[in-house]
Amino acid sequence: MIIVSGNPAGPSQPAVIVSQDDEAAIRALEDRFAAAFNAGDIDAIMKNYLQDKSLVVFDVVPRKQYLGADVYRKDWEEFFTHFRGRPKIAIMDLSITVDGNLGFSHSFQHVTGTDTQGHPVDRTVRVTDGYRKIGGNWLIVLEHISVPVDLKTGKADSLYPYSYSPG
Amino acid sequence: MIIVSGNPAGPSQPAVIVSQDDEAAIRALEDRFAAAFNAGDIDAIMKNYLQDKSLVVFDVVPRKQYLGADVYRKDWEEFFTHFRGRPKIAIMDLSITVDGNLGFSHSFQHVTGTDTQGHPVDRTVRVTDGYRKIGGNWLIVLEHISVPVDLKTGKADSLYPYSYSPG
Repeated sequence: MIIVSGNPAGPSQPAVIVSQDDEAAIRALEDRFAAAFNAGDIDAIMKNYLQDKSLVVFDVVPRKQYLGADVYRKDWEEFFTHFRGRPKIAIMDLSITVDGNLGFSHSFQHVTGTDTQGHPVDRTVRVTDGYRKIGGNWLIVLEHISVPVDLKTGKADSLYPYSYSPG
Repeated sequence: MIIVSGNPAGPSQPAVIVSQDDEAAIRALEDRFAAAFNAGDIDAIMKNYLQDKSLVVFDVVPRKQYLGADVYRKDWEEFFTHFRGRPKIAIMDLSITVDGNLGFSHSFQHVTGTDTQGHPVDRTVRVTDGYRKIGGNWLIVLEHISVPVDLKTGKADSLYPYSYSPG
């Protein structure tokens, strides 16, 4: 049974109950991620990801890809050095699809804070995550973060998501 | 049983065989997508996507998101107007994870061609897809396409993936 968040399931069946539990577990994982981000706690952030070399991340910033939890952890360490104080994140419009031991989601994530020069940071990124349930626990195994880019000018949409209508 | 492409499964079991069939079916879907792209056949491209309003796409170009097959089809029509002749696509490093009726993948997709001003186009994007098996057929239900962006300059990495080391 596939549960798509926001589409209530039909009459209860055992398989449905399991999947709804899984959808709730993935939502709780994303809540833990946001709480860890807001606390600036990289250890707690990384607990939500697959802890081996097979983690794959396409981040909003170069490089081409991040392969493995150790490499992605360094990306998070670098990220927090760009801020004065602790940036904050809010996960918006999280939609989860789950079946069996696999799931994926999409959301918008709004980051606010102050950079090291004292300038405000206010940025929304698009995030898709792939999840696997391993040993009873859901983990992010594939993450893709981006902003749209005008390919004519090569410029990211810095006013995103305010400069054009929602999808 | 979860199959991650490139990680050969252990001794054959019925569940493994089913999942390997599913992995092959998703790979065939991506091959059909590439063939349709290279033929400039938008009808054939769209046959690989969920044919209703619940398709979600984060494309490399603005807007924020594309909701529904009708809206994404217009994105493809727009895309092909930027080229003189038919652009070509090559899907590289496709890695597929599948379990039950759900799957996801990541890949790099290399697009080459000539723009309407006669300039060469040579661009690699990062793609993650979410799939569902519906009525026995695998379809893309969630697509995310991007290039990395230098957030200090707001510039997309136009030389991607050649200007920095692979992940």
